[in-house]
Amino acid sequence: MVSGNLIIGQSGGATAVINASLVGAVEAALADTRIAGIYGMHYGIAGLLQEDFIDLRQQDAGLWPQLLHTPSAALGSCRYKLQEQDIERALDIFRRYDIRYLLYIGGNDSADTAHRLAQAAHHTGYEFYAISIPKTIDNDLPFTDHCPGYGSAARFIAAAAQDSTMNTLSMPGHYPVKIIETMGRNAGWLAAASTLGKHDEADAPHIVLIPEQAFHKERFLTQVEEAYRRYGYVVIVASEALRNENGEALGATAQAGVDAFQHPLLSGTAQTLVELIKQQLNLRARFDKPGDFQRMSSQYVSPTDRQEAYLVGQKALEAALRGESDKMVTLVRHDTPTYHCTTGLVELGEIANVQRLIPDAYFDASTAMVTRAFHTYAQPLIGEPLPRYARLDTTKVISL
Amino acid sequence: MVSGNLIIGQSGGATAVINASLVGAVEAALADTRIAGIYGMHYGIAGLLQEDFIDLRQQDAGLWPQLLHTPSAALGSCRYKLQEQDIERALDIFRRYDIRYLLYIGGNDSADTAHRLAQAAHHTGYEFYAISIPKTIDNDLPFTDHCPGYGSAARFIAAAAQDSTMNTLSMPGHYPVKIIETMGRNAGWLAAASTLGKHDEADAPHIVLIPEQAFHKERFLTQVEEAYRRYGYVVIVASEALRNENGEALGATAQAGVDAFQHPLLSGTAQTLVELIKQQLNLRARFDKPGDFQRMSSQYVSPTDRQEAYLVGQKALEAALRGESDKMVTLVRHDTPTYHCTTGLVELGEIANVQRLIPDAYFDASTAMVTRAFHTYAQPLIGEPLPRYARLDTTKVISL
Repeated sequence: MVSGNLIIGQSGGATAVINASLVGAVEAALADTRIAGIYGMHYGIAGLLQEDFIDLRQQDAGLWPQLLHTPSAALGSCRYKLQEQDIERALDIFRRYDIRYLLYIGGNDSADTAHRLAQAAHHTGYEFYAISIPKTIDNDLPFTDHCPGYGSAARFIAAAAQDSTMNTLSMPGHYPVKIIETMGRNAGWLAAASTLGKHDEADAPHIVLIPEQAFHKERFLTQVEEAYRRYGYVVIVASEALRNENGEALGATAQAGVDAFQHPLLSGTAQTLVELIKQQLNLRARFDKPGDFQRMSSQYVSPTDRQEAYLVGQKALEAALRGESDKMVTLVRHDTPTYHCTTGLVELGEIANVQRLIPDAYFDASTAMVTRAFHTYAQPLIGEPLPRYARLDTTKVISL
Repeated sequence: MVSGNLIIGQSGGATAVINASLVGAVEAALADTRIAGIYGMHYGIAGLLQEDFIDLRQQDAGLWPQLLHTPSAALGSCRYKLQEQDIERALDIFRRYDIRYLLYIGGNDSADTAHRLAQAAHHTGYEFYAISIPKTIDNDLPFTDHCPGYGSAARFIAAAAQDSTMNTLSMPGHYPVKIIETMGRNAGWLAAASTLGKHDEADAPHIVLIPEQAFHKERFLTQVEEAYRRYGYVVIVASEALRNENGEALGATAQAGVDAFQHPLLSGTAQTLVELIKQQLNLRARFDKPGDFQRMSSQYVSPTDRQEAYLVGQKALEAALRGESDKMVTLVRHDTPTYHCTTGLVELGEIANVQRLIPDAYFDASTAMVTRAFHTYAQPLIGEPLPRYARLDTTKVISL
């Protein structure tokens, strides 16, 4: 294998464990004499194109263990779609800096970036090894059992649903309907994860709305009404993007009026559902929207997720040093009694533009609820099961 | 002291530690032979009026330590304003059930309820001891240094602001403005708490909007613009209710149009600010609204808060058994080098309808930021300081 410099970047939406992948890769690189300089792209591929590199050999030794517990992308991230003219420029930079190894931590677009750079280097005969490291809370990369970042965000959402429900339960008559809006524009993996603290049918959440399923207004209202009749309250978890049968977005940006300050009003998915329920069912409803907190909460990190994020970083560097290129590291689950994952590799050319949605086996559209198979899949990813809260025996005192 | 039965209730919005107050009171009652039956009001005073009592002596012994770590009101809560005709009914129920002691865990309204029942019993010559136990994430009860429930919600909000900011920092150009909406309709204590992970001026949040200060649109936009120019991103924390100089609510319910489903659109404070910033400053902005999760997150409980919630419950029972009545337990902070609180008592008649807002010494309206005095006040309440995250040394690699 050629000796040379390594460059690492982080891309797309950050997660609570994306730095663990960075640490895994850097610690492996520090231990191998074939790697000379270890550079970090400052703000992803955009930083690379500006030759904005951070020297990762010059960091305090105490930094790496600390970064394992630091959410967000320490190198800085970007959402930049590589243009044709960028590729030549990148190759020129690789040559000038003697960069022979590239590791890029990200989702689908980042895999595409790494793929195009690897292909271009190959065609020009420049010896270069590019490996993609999976990362996304959306869990929508194909060929990997799951994506680092998902387990922690899933743990957060499951806990948020459970704790927010505890609030509703304290006074069910006050706001009997609660909506929780999760991230997920095309795939419902995070919304589905809200059920991971649910043990039986009566437990919240009662209705899960995912982008993979068309939103049917009448069916939804019937389900809300029925859950309310049965349980006296309803908790609904909705992905941020839902579309009706005609593909029209629910709660899309609609310049539909102005507020007291003469600014147009917009409406999100949760707000739209709140209004729908108020208007059509005459029930008080309100929503929680944890937003970016769900991808970044250091308190809810799944230790399994952190450890796997570290592992895929480490294995990516090892693969590059074995001469692998144009591949993404995957997580491979083994069919063992207790959860066990190792890593594999997949061609980057097969990843690009393939999005892994929730399969039919994991979701029952007729009841708007995940299946047991989904729980079997997702439960190990969040680490320890969520705490089960104590409940009073509410047997009434009989009048004297 | 008269022997008899004790009744305990929980009222108003639940918190992550309101059950700790219940446990403190019950464990003290179980240890005293003057207390015969220990009853819980099922859903607060509304349950009392329906004679819906839970027998707290019949609970599994293992329950109480578990309840210490269970968020939300285990007895069930209510928001019910005591009517004149209810008082006579309540007294009749106290006599029939030989209830001599009442502990009511709640905020301002609950203090008023306990006060009116204590007064009525006194006037009819019925020997009866009523003590109120403070509880509110809003921290707006007078005469007590702070309110149990606030420390944990404050810890959550401080961590949410810090973690959500980490996300913005990973890609400042993507959504340079972040709004976080906190609870607090009249008092800005929770919004103020968002600064407890802030160490210097450049750290987020940069602007805090509290209900105590009139919202000046132009000043606000100037502040956002300036922070953006200085730091390249802006984090704004806003209480859910803000009013302009004329007392008009920002983002008030305004039936100002309809969405794709023909339902009227409403706008909350955060959404309104997002639109304002987009329209007037042409900056991309988005919001997080943790909602009920902020009052209920078991992972963010401040151990100090939990311990004090237990303490006020215990001390309330002890006070009643000493013959105190018509009083609320308070937390009294001592002027010692390390944080130290004990308890006191205050007349309930002095509490009713008095709301403790953020004093001028804790907030600088001209910079929309808390003062150092606020930090000194609030920091000990959230328990351990928040973690300080690692940062890379971003010294650039020089081109070869």
